[in-house]
Amino acid sequence: MNPIELTSIGSDTICAVSTPQGRGGIAVVRVSGPQALNIVQQRWQGKPLSDVETHTVHLGQLMDSNGDILDQAVLTVFRAPNSFTGEDVVELACHGSTWIQQQAVQTLIDAGCRHATAGEFTRRAFANGRMDLSQAEAVADVIEAQSRAAHHVAMSQMRGRYSDELKSLRDKLLHFVALIELELDFSEEDVTFADRGEVTALAHEIHDLISRLADSYRDGNAIRNGMPVAIVGQTNAGKSTLLNAMLRDDRALVSNIHGTTRDTIEDTVVMGGTLFRFIDTAGIRQSTDAVERMGIERTWQAIDKAKVVLWIVDVTSADTSMAHDILSHCEGKALIAVLNKTDLDDDVAARSELNDILPEGTPIVAISAKSDNDIEALRELIVRSAALPTVDNDAIIVTNARHYQALTRSRDAIARAITGLTNGLSGDLLDQDIRECLHWLGEITGEITTDNILGEIFSHFCIGK
Amino acid sequence: MNPIELTSIGSDTICAVSTPQGRGGIAVVRVSGPQALNIVQQRWQGKPLSDVETHTVHLGQLMDSNGDILDQAVLTVFRAPNSFTGEDVVELACHGSTWIQQQAVQTLIDAGCRHATAGEFTRRAFANGRMDLSQAEAVADVIEAQSRAAHHVAMSQMRGRYSDELKSLRDKLLHFVALIELELDFSEEDVTFADRGEVTALAHEIHDLISRLADSYRDGNAIRNGMPVAIVGQTNAGKSTLLNAMLRDDRALVSNIHGTTRDTIEDTVVMGGTLFRFIDTAGIRQSTDAVERMGIERTWQAIDKAKVVLWIVDVTSADTSMAHDILSHCEGKALIAVLNKTDLDDDVAARSELNDILPEGTPIVAISAKSDNDIEALRELIVRSAALPTVDNDAIIVTNARHYQALTRSRDAIARAITGLTNGLSGDLLDQDIRECLHWLGEITGEITTDNILGEIFSHFCIGK
Repeated sequence: MNPIELTSIGSDTICAVSTPQGRGGIAVVRVSGPQALNIVQQRWQGKPLSDVETHTVHLGQLMDSNGDILDQAVLTVFRAPNSFTGEDVVELACHGSTWIQQQAVQTLIDAGCRHATAGEFTRRAFANGRMDLSQAEAVADVIEAQSRAAHHVAMSQMRGRYSDELKSLRDKLLHFVALIELELDFSEEDVTFADRGEVTALAHEIHDLISRLADSYRDGNAIRNGMPVAIVGQTNAGKSTLLNAMLRDDRALVSNIHGTTRDTIEDTVVMGGTLFRFIDTAGIRQSTDAVERMGIERTWQAIDKAKVVLWIVDVTSADTSMAHDILSHCEGKALIAVLNKTDLDDDVAARSELNDILPEGTPIVAISAKSDNDIEALRELIVRSAALPTVDNDAIIVTNARHYQALTRSRDAIARAITGLTNGLSGDLLDQDIRECLHWLGEITGEITTDNILGEIFSHFCIGK
Repeated sequence: MNPIELTSIGSDTICAVSTPQGRGGIAVVRVSGPQALNIVQQRWQGKPLSDVETHTVHLGQLMDSNGDILDQAVLTVFRAPNSFTGEDVVELACHGSTWIQQQAVQTLIDAGCRHATAGEFTRRAFANGRMDLSQAEAVADVIEAQSRAAHHVAMSQMRGRYSDELKSLRDKLLHFVALIELELDFSEEDVTFADRGEVTALAHEIHDLISRLADSYRDGNAIRNGMPVAIVGQTNAGKSTLLNAMLRDDRALVSNIHGTTRDTIEDTVVMGGTLFRFIDTAGIRQSTDAVERMGIERTWQAIDKAKVVLWIVDVTSADTSMAHDILSHCEGKALIAVLNKTDLDDDVAARSELNDILPEGTPIVAISAKSDNDIEALRELIVRSAALPTVDNDAIIVTNARHYQALTRSRDAIARAITGLTNGLSGDLLDQDIRECLHWLGEITGEITTDNILGEIFSHFCIGK
């Protein structure tokens, strides 16, 4: 727990560059806190800030600590509580040189600001009731989003649709509590059984709602961090060449993530508006070599984590001897058989052989990774096979591991309450389960939280947000 | 000449991201042109833009081309002519994800904007008389500035001090023209000689003013692009180790520039508020090898371009056999003798030997580049030796090669006029020289210019400025 942060929220005034790092036409320095106007005024030549109305902009000069003109800048005033943080906020749009950005922050610190910590503006917005915790977390997700799908889910969460759903769940739970407590109040009068039917129905409804949210996390996590696609096959089938071919057209959107081992290389690429995470694996073959067997073991683990599996078969050898092992790891996955090296051979023999082995309906696509033939068809097939939920409708999708954990815990609690109802448990014990369920949901929205949790959440934000 | 640009200035509406590239808390999309309000309105949910006053900000939703919410954004309206460009301008402060930035520009283009070319906002500011050309060029210099000195000079130019000086020169030249034309009008009446004294004095005054500006370019160029410091000495004297030691503490401010040859490596670093450009050279020794001699030839060229020369001498060998060659290239330079490797030997013998060779007053500093001993003293000596003009006073310093060229041409023209006056040249011929002088000064401020020149100037800007 950071002692500065404990005392600081709302009491001191913070500043930071809020625009991306580096040089550009404009950079924005944001100042927030009770002294925002007074501090900026000390470094401002222009209309006196005490006279300016909220939500107005003013051209003037930003001065350095020596009283020299640092920049001609455009200043915007947002008076509390009508600002992002809920405090007085001043935004200075300066020229975007790295030197001006450094010096602008420095002159404001010299005048009494403190440099903001990561996510501190958003943390203040949360602390001042401008948004709940799930919305605050969505701000970071909106900024991180690299694909249409990830953007849509994060934006929906930031705009409060998820919060509304949680509020409605909370209302249902409070109604549940009220019914149980009614039962407790009248327990002497034997009204118990009249209400248990309604209570049980409500408990099931709550359980189903929470389950739906928790179950959405598998897709939500894939949308946010990339839909995992494992590329498997025998040594020299052309796995790495295929990976390169998949990434080539989108090189600008590609980031390299080196796995913890030399045997797994991950790369992400946006296809059809969704982020995919391709996992290149070690070639599979029977081996007695201990090191090689470890690599193959990791290949099976990669398949386990994947939603889509590309099995690459070399048409020139059409070696399917490892088919049994591969297929046994692909249950519940979207499997695509990829016949590679069509530039060297036609695919007739290999295709017929695969048809006999593969489960019915498994798609087979013939490509040449080297010559870039039919790669586009493979892309489309992958996007279709991933069968992502349509994010454009209004279904709420949970993308946050912390929320998923809280949801599974609240689901466990409501499940216990349902068992208790079935077994005729007394109202005061049911009440305990239901309050635990409320507790975990409250952790998501931030009604119930600790400084440790908040510190952890906001440390992942960028500075200036 | 770009046909789009010819027709477009002031007629169409442009947009671009104006903040630095990459991800951050906020990104600003700027829209400028006669349709700025109408186009943004098509993608805006919030207060109707026709109703909003200039210099006010408004929270609302930016919509994509499908009518879905792209982002919650803060919009600022600047109505013509009170904007950076002089046109109607709308600035949209969005969340700074790369995805939102791309999509925000796309949705505005779909609604009728054109993507701005490099520097097009500033070009419009110039075209609309919001600034002259030298001020517009200074906008780019302000954004590029990496040091206090470069920032100060660029800011002064952007704020119009240089323009004022040029205006005053122009007024003097017009007065000159008036005097000459008066002479022409009255030439029949033989009043010539009465005015020639005043005219000559004025011509000298103009010549001196232009000379002072042109002469400031040597320092101005060093301030803007880095004060050149050549590191020379014999092979193994420790030149590269010294370069690394000089750069070490400022690694964050260092950029690597690989020379056109393998033999010259340049690195820049900010010391004492000024950018220095260190040039590491090939070791100097007598050689018959043709390739090595070419390397040494480049070393002499590096010294010619340098303002400060560091001659590194290894104290353990104290070999000064090349002293004559080095000193003969250092005339007019600030020479510093650096005794290196004091960790291996004391410097007494080498210092005494150097004292006998070096011109009187040449500073000698003993260091160990490897052990980082006395590097700080060397830094201070370099900053002092560079003897930069104090940029904090009000002297105007020319930093722009284009301006320097125009100034030397206008100086040549006024010099010809002075010669003409001395030789009793007739008024109409003098008039021609003086109009040429005016022409070149007008090229600096942009009164006289061509689309080719403008295209060249603004192509060096970043997009969004």
